Amino acid sequence: MDKKIIGIDLGGTTAKFAILTMDGEIQQKWSIDTNILDEGSHIVPEIVESINHRLNLYNMTSEDFIGIGMGTPGSVDLEKGTVIGAYNLNWATLQPVKELIEKGTKIPFALDNDANVAALGERWKGAGENDPDVIFITLGTGVGGGIIAEGKLLHGTAGCAGEVGHVTVDPNGFECTCGKRGCLETVSSATGVVRVARHLAEEYVGDSKIKALLDDGEEVTSKDIFEYAQAEDPFALMVVDKVCFYLGLACGNLGNTLNPSSIVLGGGVSAAGEFLRSRVENYFKEFTFPQVRNSTKIKLAELGNEAGVIGAASLALQFDK
Amino acid sequence: MDKKIIGIDLGGTTAKFAILTMDGEIQQKWSIDTNILDEGSHIVPEIVESINHRLNLYNMTSEDFIGIGMGTPGSVDLEKGTVIGAYNLNWATLQPVKELIEKGTKIPFALDNDANVAALGERWKGAGENDPDVIFITLGTGVGGGIIAEGKLLHGTAGCAGEVGHVTVDPNGFECTCGKRGCLETVSSATGVVRVARHLAEEYVGDSKIKALLDDGEEVTSKDIFEYAQAEDPFALMVVDKVCFYLGLACGNLGNTLNPSSIVLGGGVSAAGEFLRSRVENYFKEFTFPQVRNSTKIKLAELGNEAGVIGAASLALQFDK
Repeated sequence: MDKKIIGIDLGGTTAKFAILTMDGEIQQKWSIDTNILDEGSHIVPEIVESINHRLNLYNMTSEDFIGIGMGTPGSVDLEKGTVIGAYNLNWATLQPVKELIEKGTKIPFALDNDANVAALGERWKGAGENDPDVIFITLGTGVGGGIIAEGKLLHGTAGCAGEVGHVTVDPNGFECTCGKRGCLETVSSATGVVRVARHLAEEYVGDSKIKALLDDGEEVTSKDIFEYAQAEDPFALMVVDKVCFYLGLACGNLGNTLNPSSIVLGGGVSAAGEFLRSRVENYFKEFTFPQVRNSTKIKLAELGNEAGVIGAASLALQFDK
Repeated sequence: MDKKIIGIDLGGTTAKFAILTMDGEIQQKWSIDTNILDEGSHIVPEIVESINHRLNLYNMTSEDFIGIGMGTPGSVDLEKGTVIGAYNLNWATLQPVKELIEKGTKIPFALDNDANVAALGERWKGAGENDPDVIFITLGTGVGGGIIAEGKLLHGTAGCAGEVGHVTVDPNGFECTCGKRGCLETVSSATGVVRVARHLAEEYVGDSKIKALLDDGEEVTSKDIFEYAQAEDPFALMVVDKVCFYLGLACGNLGNTLNPSSIVLGGGVSAAGEFLRSRVENYFKEFTFPQVRNSTKIKLAELGNEAGVIGAASLALQFDK
C-alpha cells in the first residue's frame, strides 16, 4: 500500500483531521472538539488519542504514514515544533507540540501557522494550481495570509511573512489592534467592512435600507452589506466599492512586489464570490504595472474549510525521503 | 588552486568584470566600454574576447573556473539564457547570450537582471550579512530592487518580482512612465525627488534658497536638495521628509509582507547616507506592526558599484557540483 499523510487543522472550536494520499486526495476525515480547559493542556493528548483511535479503526499503523502536518494558531517555532501565544487555545506558555505528538503516535510531525497552512492547501490542490508563486489572503474575522514564492512558503526573519492584514492601505486610516493605522484588516475583515459602512454612513445622504439599519443601531454584518449591494442598494454598493479599492490596492502592491501567478481570496468575506473578485480585480488592474497586470490573476479560493487539512498534510511531504 | 568565479555587470556605458574566490573575495577586476553600435551586436563578442584575453594574461584557463554570472538590463529568460528589450544596449531583438558566452569561453554561464544581481551582491557580501531574507532597493535614475526570501532570489511568474519602483504609494499621485499613478519611482528616484520639490514649491511660501532656484528655472538635482536639507533649508527639509514618508511607507509594506532581516537602500539617492536612512526608518516604524518593527532593519548598501559584479558572480555558484 502506498504511504499516506495526515493533516490537522487546529482551531479554537474544533480540530479537523484528514488522511490523504501523497497526491493530496482526502481518503478519510473527522474532527473533534477542541478542549481548551486547564490552559489547553488536554489539546495535544486528545489529538494523539484521536489519531491512534482512528488508525486502529482503519487497521493502519504508524508505518503506513510518511508524516503528520498541522496548522495552528499562535506563534510557531518551526524547527523546535513548539507553539506559544495561541490565546484562543489558552496556550499562553510554550507548548512542545512536536515532541508530544511524535512520542504519542511514532509518526514524524511538522507544523506551521494556520494561515500559512491554508495558503499551502490552496496552492497545492486549490486555486493556486500548484504554481511556484501563489499568495493566499483570508478575509475573515481578521485578515491573514500566506506567501509561496519560488515553490517555498515564506516565513521571514521573525515568522511574520504573509501578514498581509497589516499592510498599510491608508496612512490616515482607522486604528488597528496591532497599534498602527490604516491596516488592510481594518477595512476588509468582516468587522472592517462594517467599520467602513459606519464611517461612510456619517456622510451619505441618499436613500438606503442598509444605511437606515445602521443609523437605527441594528446589528449589521459584512454579509448583510454584500447582500444589499448585490440587490443594488446604492449605499451598500459604495461600501463594497471602498472595500474593494483597498483590497485592490493591497493586492496590486503584492503583485508589483512578488508577481505571483495568482492571488487567492478566501475566508468568510470571500463568500461574496465573483461579485467581490471582479471588483477587486478592477482596482488591482488600476494599481499594477502592465507586465504584472497581464500575468498575475485574482482568484477565489476553491477548497473552503478543507484548505487547512490539505495544506497541513503537505507539510508532512518533507519527511518523504 | 581553488576554483574561481567570474562576475560581469553589463551596463549601457561600461561592462565591469571581476574574478572572485568562491567566498566572494574579488581578486582581479577590470572593465571595458560597452559598444552599442550595430544593434549591440559587438557586446557579447567583446565580452568573450575580454575574458579570454584576461585569462591568458593571468595564466588561467576555463578549467580554473566554476562558472560566469552576469547582470544585464532588459528582460531575461533565465533558463534559456537570453535577453530581450535592453534598450540602452540597443538590444531590441532576442540575444542568445548564454549560448555565445559558453561557446566563446568554455565556461558555464548564468544571468539575471541587473537589479536582482545587485540585490544578490548586497545580500551575500554587503549589508545583507548573507541572511536568508533580504530586500534591496536601488534609488537611481529609476527605482529598482531585488528580493531574496528563504535564501532564494524571487522572480515571480513573469520575472517582475522585486519591481518595487512600481509599488503604489499614492493612489492619486504623479503619473509614472509605466502608465499608472503614484509609483514609488515617481517620488523617490533622483528625478522623483526633484518632482516632489517642484510640486511642493507651488504652495510653499517661506524663505528658501533651493525654492528660489526652482522658481528661477535653474537646474536642481536630487543631490542639491539633500545638501540644502542637511544645511537645514526648511523647504528642502520638507521635500526630504515627503520623500522619506513614501520610502518609509513602501519599506513598511515590504516589511509587513515579507519580514526580511534587512531592507537595504542603495543607488545614487542613497548617497545622502544616514540622513536619509534614519528618516526612512522613522516612517518605516510608523507603518509596520510591532513584530516587524522589531525584527526588520533599514540599512544602507555597503558595496556601491561592486554589488553588481559580486552578485553576478554568485550566480555561478550554482555550477559548483
